[in-house]
Amino acid sequence: MDKEFKGVYPALITPMDSDGKLNESALRKVIEFNINAGVHGFWVAGGTGESVLLDDEENRRIAQIVSEESKGRIKNIMHVGTPTTARSAKLAEHAAKSGVEAICCVPPFFYRQSDDAIVEHYRVVASAADLPFFVYNLPQSTQVEITPDLMQKIKDKVPQLVGLKHSAPYIGPIRQFCKMGLCCMVGNSRLMLPALMMGASGCIDGPPGMVPEIFVDIWDSFQSGNFKQARESQEKGAQVAALVENTKMHAYYKTFISKRIGIDCGQPRPPSEGLTSSEKAVLSNFMIQMKIKTLS
Amino acid sequence: MDKEFKGVYPALITPMDSDGKLNESALRKVIEFNINAGVHGFWVAGGTGESVLLDDEENRRIAQIVSEESKGRIKNIMHVGTPTTARSAKLAEHAAKSGVEAICCVPPFFYRQSDDAIVEHYRVVASAADLPFFVYNLPQSTQVEITPDLMQKIKDKVPQLVGLKHSAPYIGPIRQFCKMGLCCMVGNSRLMLPALMMGASGCIDGPPGMVPEIFVDIWDSFQSGNFKQARESQEKGAQVAALVENTKMHAYYKTFISKRIGIDCGQPRPPSEGLTSSEKAVLSNFMIQMKIKTLS
Amino acid sequence: MDKEFKGVYPALITPMDSDGKLNESALRKVIEFNINAGVHGFWVAGGTGESVLLDDEENRRIAQIVSEESKGRIKNIMHVGTPTTARSAKLAEHAAKSGVEAICCVPPFFYRQSDDAIVEHYRVVASAADLPFFVYNLPQSTQVEITPDLMQKIKDKVPQLVGLKHSAPYIGPIRQFCKMGLCCMVGNSRLMLPALMMGASGCIDGPPGMVPEIFVDIWDSFQSGNFKQARESQEKGAQVAALVENTKMHAYYKTFISKRIGIDCGQPRPPSEGLTSSEKAVLSNFMIQMKIKTLS
Amino acid sequence: MDKEFKGVYPALITPMDSDGKLNESALRKVIEFNINAGVHGFWVAGGTGESVLLDDEENRRIAQIVSEESKGRIKNIMHVGTPTTARSAKLAEHAAKSGVEAICCVPPFFYRQSDDAIVEHYRVVASAADLPFFVYNLPQSTQVEITPDLMQKIKDKVPQLVGLKHSAPYIGPIRQFCKMGLCCMVGNSRLMLPALMMGASGCIDGPPGMVPEIFVDIWDSFQSGNFKQARESQEKGAQVAALVENTKMHAYYKTFISKRIGIDCGQPRPPSEGLTSSEKAVLSNFMIQMKIKTLS
Repeated sequence: MDKEFKGVYPALITPMDSDGKLNESALRKVIEFNINAGVHGFWVAGGTGESVLLDDEENRRIAQIVSEESKGRIKNIMHVGTPTTARSAKLAEHAAKSGVEAICCVPPFFYRQSDDAIVEHYRVVASAADLPFFVYNLPQSTQVEITPDLMQKIKDKVPQLVGLKHSAPYIGPIRQFCKMGLCCMVGNSRLMLPALMMGASGCIDGPPGMVPEIFVDIWDSFQSGNFKQARESQEKGAQVAALVENTKMHAYYKTFISKRIGIDCGQPRPPSEGLTSSEKAVLSNFMIQMKIKTLS
Repeated sequence: MDKEFKGVYPALITPMDSDGKLNESALRKVIEFNINAGVHGFWVAGGTGESVLLDDEENRRIAQIVSEESKGRIKNIMHVGTPTTARSAKLAEHAAKSGVEAICCVPPFFYRQSDDAIVEHYRVVASAADLPFFVYNLPQSTQVEITPDLMQKIKDKVPQLVGLKHSAPYIGPIRQFCKMGLCCMVGNSRLMLPALMMGASGCIDGPPGMVPEIFVDIWDSFQSGNFKQARESQEKGAQVAALVENTKMHAYYKTFISKRIGIDCGQPRPPSEGLTSSEKAVLSNFMIQMKIKTLS
Repeated sequence: MDKEFKGVYPALITPMDSDGKLNESALRKVIEFNINAGVHGFWVAGGTGESVLLDDEENRRIAQIVSEESKGRIKNIMHVGTPTTARSAKLAEHAAKSGVEAICCVPPFFYRQSDDAIVEHYRVVASAADLPFFVYNLPQSTQVEITPDLMQKIKDKVPQLVGLKHSAPYIGPIRQFCKMGLCCMVGNSRLMLPALMMGASGCIDGPPGMVPEIFVDIWDSFQSGNFKQARESQEKGAQVAALVENTKMHAYYKTFISKRIGIDCGQPRPPSEGLTSSEKAVLSNFMIQMKIKTLS
Repeated sequence: MDKEFKGVYPALITPMDSDGKLNESALRKVIEFNINAGVHGFWVAGGTGESVLLDDEENRRIAQIVSEESKGRIKNIMHVGTPTTARSAKLAEHAAKSGVEAICCVPPFFYRQSDDAIVEHYRVVASAADLPFFVYNLPQSTQVEITPDLMQKIKDKVPQLVGLKHSAPYIGPIRQFCKMGLCCMVGNSRLMLPALMMGASGCIDGPPGMVPEIFVDIWDSFQSGNFKQARESQEKGAQVAALVENTKMHAYYKTFISKRIGIDCGQPRPPSEGLTSSEKAVLSNFMIQMKIKTLS
């Protein structure tokens, strides 16, 4: 089992059709667009992919599509987080059968749980897939901060653990996660370059799926020691990321990517809101000013 | 449509069998136990009822059981909150058909939404049932505080709105919600008596389902002006409520109520944890010391 | 040493002259105004009194004035909180010599301290005065929540401890503080009546200094069992308190009280801001609508 | 007026004698020790220097000592933050006369202030010195986050503004502060290297005063493009910084630095606590293991 995950992993959106159903052909286009731009893998059906708004059948179908479409060209890390251990374990089991390379999972949310309960949740879910396992540290949504201490408890009980997506605002713990031998992927693309400097293995976030060529360039430039170029691309990436720093992030992701690939990726699922006409105009102007290539 | 809701509304637990499935007969016993103790209604499948851990089929079945079992003797306020507007609206529609007297709904959680999106979510869900509608203000779990200002926006767009369960730590806004003409039920049973003094219409919480006779006595004593008695019962109620101030609250609820009604209400659904032997012993001793009547 | 403190304790403002210096004659007028309205004591040079904006000489002078002016008619609880233990201890010693009936102290702020350090701070400060000692629980400003557990540690080491002003948003712990035998004064005047219902000994806050007659009426009505009257006065008091729920609270306090006593109590000390003309007009209209008696 | 500030600026401790008074000769030794190690300036009497625990006379004396001792060899940024605008303005005026190169100031704390009040506070304080002015963004202690938006308001009204110490946990805004043309010094030495990668002008923090040679090496290595060396030193620096991540940080700073310079820098001022014997032993062992040169 290949446990190495590094580079640029866009968090995939979940394209929908005009009925609000999963749009499989658009999803395949999104995957191809990113692979062509050189990404190293995907974070599938996570926060950017409207995770908790999807039903389990959709989650399973997405796992099959990404595995099938990417045909081993990149690595898929499939999100299986749900409020219950049983549902997550079933999704994990299915994800493994579908052929994804790894799974990931937010900690239990809504009800505050003890450290023991969080560890046990992860233990059961990870063993159901028996694939490389990523913790998803997203305290903004879950109210659970996966500290280095809690991560050590997870590491002690979950043999499949290989890494995490660290999306907490404070990036200091990246150093400790790296020292624990974990693959720490920074979950905030505005901080990809500084995180790489700290030892992070790469970046997992939504904005890399908007402009994968820019984030792949940060990665390549950093690897080759061209820090000037890396910083220039990081600045561009941060400007793109600024577009989604609001409650309409899913709408911005989908509208932006629709223009890039020339296929309508649909609207976010309610209660998430769509863009107004003026928000769409601002988005279009931004893409023109940034000279971002579009197909529509 | 009777819009008056007042008094003691236990938040119902969701009893489960040894396979972790809904235990219908135990649920019926729990309902009878509470009605016999004089409660005025139920908050069904909410936080105490493991809300987000239930699947939609379970939510629908519970709506049917409570409607059927209570046969108009009390009022049921059915919780239909889920992460998506569509799922919640479908549950709302079903709840109305099942014969509950009102529905309630947490605001969207996990993804931060704008006020407009929250209002629209509530508008769609409330109109799907067209029953009296309660907002569930539970910022500890949802990260959304329903302030009086936001409530006014909801009131402007949701004609079914009649009230709220206010479970936020700060009870000051109860005064403003009452002045808005809303039925404000305090969601913290430790503060039932002070909230009544502020104008609250009653109390909705889990602990009243553990010792309904105590909370009914607070209500009756307050109504009759016997404040000394009301305070004594409030003190007892607060001591019981202290038992569930931890991450194992669901296990404490179920174990306590199992002893009271003499039927096993089962374990909380994982990731929520069950009690250890020593925790169970502490619980038993507490019930003996408090002279709480049990059937097992 | 009389350790009983109960009733309405306005948090005194610190009137200033046009040079921003302590206005002693205005302070004496404020004291008389409140005593004439029937208050039971004062919380002196605390949050409402611009505590941390005063220098130590001003704090000492205020202790002398209040002791002298009130001549044993009411009880003064003098605030001696500063960032260092030594300064607070010196102020405590002076306060005792000045003749105040008790002292009070915020926990150390700005730098986070351990429980042990907080207890030791209080021990040294309290022993310097050897008067009844009140803890000031004001986490909004200090970032330290004095929980019942921490209070027990304080009680174990500070023999002078008699009570606290509980200004934290969540009033649940009032019950526990009362059970510990402490004199718990609620620090939020919007919640005076519900807090009395919980066993609080009274109310300490700024708004009672704006309309002492209203808050004294809440106290008297509650004592005599006239809850209808108590609730009406609580509603009026809450409306007045709503005026100061903003960053200009000191300006609202001073302008309001100036009108009531017919003497200019001056401006808040910068960085605190004064009122604009339109804010002053709103204040005047409010006072007219509420039929609040004024002398200017 | 030289407005360029960059490199390593240790936040100076305030050495004290056995009576808890300012120890001038130890302070001079600390200054020399750091200058000899190659630092580029000092942040004087700030958080690490027990800022709010000092009286104004001590603050003034420190300004004189650092100016005198450093004789233009490095740049001193003198902290003048106090709770009142008037006190801070007087300290600012004095600091300018003492010969420091810049001043800095925390926003008003304890009482929540409006943006306008914060800007006005800074305007008055900065104009009193008319030296390059640094904002101190330390929300952990002040509860005020200086966002890029608020910083723009400050920039519009405070012509002396040249930069900030950004000590907030989230470092994302460094990018925006740099784009505003500000000298952004990261206030968290664990993140010095990633912050430099983002465009920060340097680092201001306490740990660089413990091991200035390590942090100067990060700076030099980064400037010369030797990132491997920079990362190794950053790792060492982060290990040292981990020592002070607790409520006894001032005691750890002083004990550590006493050993380095061979002079007793004394105890922190109460309520801050000193180290226990076992904490001192851990500190000594750490210094030995890290092969840190000491003189005692």
